[in-house]
Amino acid sequence: MTFSLDNEVELEQTFQDLKSNGYNLDLTRGKPSLEQLDLSSGLFSINLAKFSNSIDIRNYGELLGLEVCREFGSKILKFPKENVIAGGNSSLTLMSQYLASLYLHGSGNGPWLSSERISFLCPVPGYDRHFKLCEEFGINMIPIPLTGSGPNIDIAKRLVNEDPSIKGIWCVPKHSNPTGEIYNEECIKGLLELANIRKNDFKILWDNAYAVHDFDPSEDLADIFMLSKESKTEDSVIAFTSTSKITFAGAGISFIAMSKNNLGLFCKHYSSTVIGPDKVNQARHVLFLKNYENLLNHMKGHAEILKPKFEMVEKWLSHLNNCSWTKPKGGYFVSFNSAPGLAKKIIKLSEEAGLKLTPAGSTFPYGVDPKDENIRLAPTACTLEELEKAMEIFVVCVSLANLESKV
Amino acid sequence: MTFSLDNEVELEQTFQDLKSNGYNLDLTRGKPSLEQLDLSSGLFSINLAKFSNSIDIRNYGELLGLEVCREFGSKILKFPKENVIAGGNSSLTLMSQYLASLYLHGSGNGPWLSSERISFLCPVPGYDRHFKLCEEFGINMIPIPLTGSGPNIDIAKRLVNEDPSIKGIWCVPKHSNPTGEIYNEECIKGLLELANIRKNDFKILWDNAYAVHDFDPSEDLADIFMLSKESKTEDSVIAFTSTSKITFAGAGISFIAMSKNNLGLFCKHYSSTVIGPDKVNQARHVLFLKNYENLLNHMKGHAEILKPKFEMVEKWLSHLNNCSWTKPKGGYFVSFNSAPGLAKKIIKLSEEAGLKLTPAGSTFPYGVDPKDENIRLAPTACTLEELEKAMEIFVVCVSLANLESKV
Repeated sequence: MTFSLDNEVELEQTFQDLKSNGYNLDLTRGKPSLEQLDLSSGLFSINLAKFSNSIDIRNYGELLGLEVCREFGSKILKFPKENVIAGGNSSLTLMSQYLASLYLHGSGNGPWLSSERISFLCPVPGYDRHFKLCEEFGINMIPIPLTGSGPNIDIAKRLVNEDPSIKGIWCVPKHSNPTGEIYNEECIKGLLELANIRKNDFKILWDNAYAVHDFDPSEDLADIFMLSKESKTEDSVIAFTSTSKITFAGAGISFIAMSKNNLGLFCKHYSSTVIGPDKVNQARHVLFLKNYENLLNHMKGHAEILKPKFEMVEKWLSHLNNCSWTKPKGGYFVSFNSAPGLAKKIIKLSEEAGLKLTPAGSTFPYGVDPKDENIRLAPTACTLEELEKAMEIFVVCVSLANLESKV
Repeated sequence: MTFSLDNEVELEQTFQDLKSNGYNLDLTRGKPSLEQLDLSSGLFSINLAKFSNSIDIRNYGELLGLEVCREFGSKILKFPKENVIAGGNSSLTLMSQYLASLYLHGSGNGPWLSSERISFLCPVPGYDRHFKLCEEFGINMIPIPLTGSGPNIDIAKRLVNEDPSIKGIWCVPKHSNPTGEIYNEECIKGLLELANIRKNDFKILWDNAYAVHDFDPSEDLADIFMLSKESKTEDSVIAFTSTSKITFAGAGISFIAMSKNNLGLFCKHYSSTVIGPDKVNQARHVLFLKNYENLLNHMKGHAEILKPKFEMVEKWLSHLNNCSWTKPKGGYFVSFNSAPGLAKKIIKLSEEAGLKLTPAGSTFPYGVDPKDENIRLAPTACTLEELEKAMEIFVVCVSLANLESKV
């Protein structure tokens, strides 16, 4: 750095210089970069004549998806293939369809529609799209803290014991959005205990979006399907993933997995909303990804592109004081906590200097970060050069906000 | 025919002969045939490098779909492009998402969730998937008769005036499923009057699935968007279509169109359930279909394949007495009415002789055909040779049922 973060005059000057440059930088959304998308350009020239299957992929049918495609979901989620549905291009849509099925039919304890109040535990900071879905369905959201290895189970247990309206929890168990943490086995067992407290009238919505998205060696995620079998809570686990950040974002394959019991209940709703998924795209993905080993190899390409970006973020953040941030081993985000009360200010300053950040509070239910401290940084979409400038702006704005708050 | 349909002994012998052959024929679902699917085999080898667009189709975004793709929906549905969303592979999914948005938000008069009872008028015979969706959402279905040029508007008006729970109507306005009729302008104006009676708290779910699916010259469908503008009922019309029977069934593009007012309301829900559609498949379709004129030309290929099949159905049915059937100019179905009380019997006899027919009652709400007379014939999926045999079996079974019922 050619300037000091402690000297207010110098910092203000640097901020004004940055402002005058008219940058247009963006660290808001967890999107793959062009370079990452190019890794899957082979999808554009797949020879579908090579796809041999007893099913005509060009015609209706196969509600649960092509068996060879469900196999990929099975491997990624570590659920048996017969428990996996391969769907359309969006796991978010599967989540909404699953919630709709609970509202219309429930899963053994009557439709949620007839309940006066349904609440979900929401580990924070978390994924804004999960919170948006809850708002959409009128699900009351109760934030609970994350520990660095999953949600705080003691607090979760207390809440579940106290409040019978709590019917589920959102989880991004690996490289969590945005904290990057990986739920440990103790935590996962704790989550399943919550389900046991509620006699399985509890849904762990297991959004394993970053299941194979490591850029550094990381610990294995414990096998929730096996653990749920052991604790007889398999009807409480609903797992999701997609290839959106494996192949093309929004043009990949989504997956949902659950117990056979739940699958029967869900399909009553699901089959009323779709005749079958796009099997042509599923076949393309099967031919492109070949097998799970090759998929993991493909993910190494992503890792090579992503790792320098996360190192760049770390390099710049390490200059800062009075704040904390996560050091993920995979996924798409760094979760940054300023001193309390400064997040909105930092986001405003950054905006002035040409850097768009995720709106303050968006990692919290109802968009309210009670401490006004959390900022989700999404360093993947931009180039390394853009990221360098973005991080410079960010670090300057954090330091400026720190200094101003001390006056 | 080598046998007489009036001689019971001969007929019984023919039936036994057919039975002993162990046929495995199927006239149940409105699926395109292999030959039709081959018309779109060019979709398999589209060179996406030729797709020039300011948007990266491989990344997230464009909730409403690619503009060049929405253009096709606009042309097919005759709605302005800005009123059209190009979605995923299934118009049924768009229908379910639209109904969900009404339940959660309504469209100006509060969420349907808070209504004790929601009813829909269901022209009969109609499309089983529409009825299934109503059942799924708990919408009470009130059958009303079709006239050959759309629903009976007098009856519809009386019902709408009598029953405030009626909030909408299902329509397949062109080559209706299964009757093949085309709604005339008077009928369409009548439908819009229903909306006026309800001050637009009424939804005409306009499933124009067969908008460009003529195999014989047929009258134009009146422009409901224009007519709704004139009668200030544009907020009551929600139109759907897809390319499932233009390109690949279940791997095409779906469309939903509505007033700008409704679009804003719907997107609140829609945007919570999906980040964007599969733009790669949309781009493929745009490159393959080129433009609307070419699409219409492509449909001539379908017509050439379909016309002989419908002629074959007509040829066989013309031998029959004591029954009636439709003579569509497009679409996928022939609606057959036996003498009252014989449909189940005919379907059972056909099944015994190796011909699967759509279950009796499936063209009626709740699966109940009060007169037990309607059978939907779907002659498209099988080959002409299979169809010939299937129709022979059908005609024999109808005649046998007729004779037996006279005993």
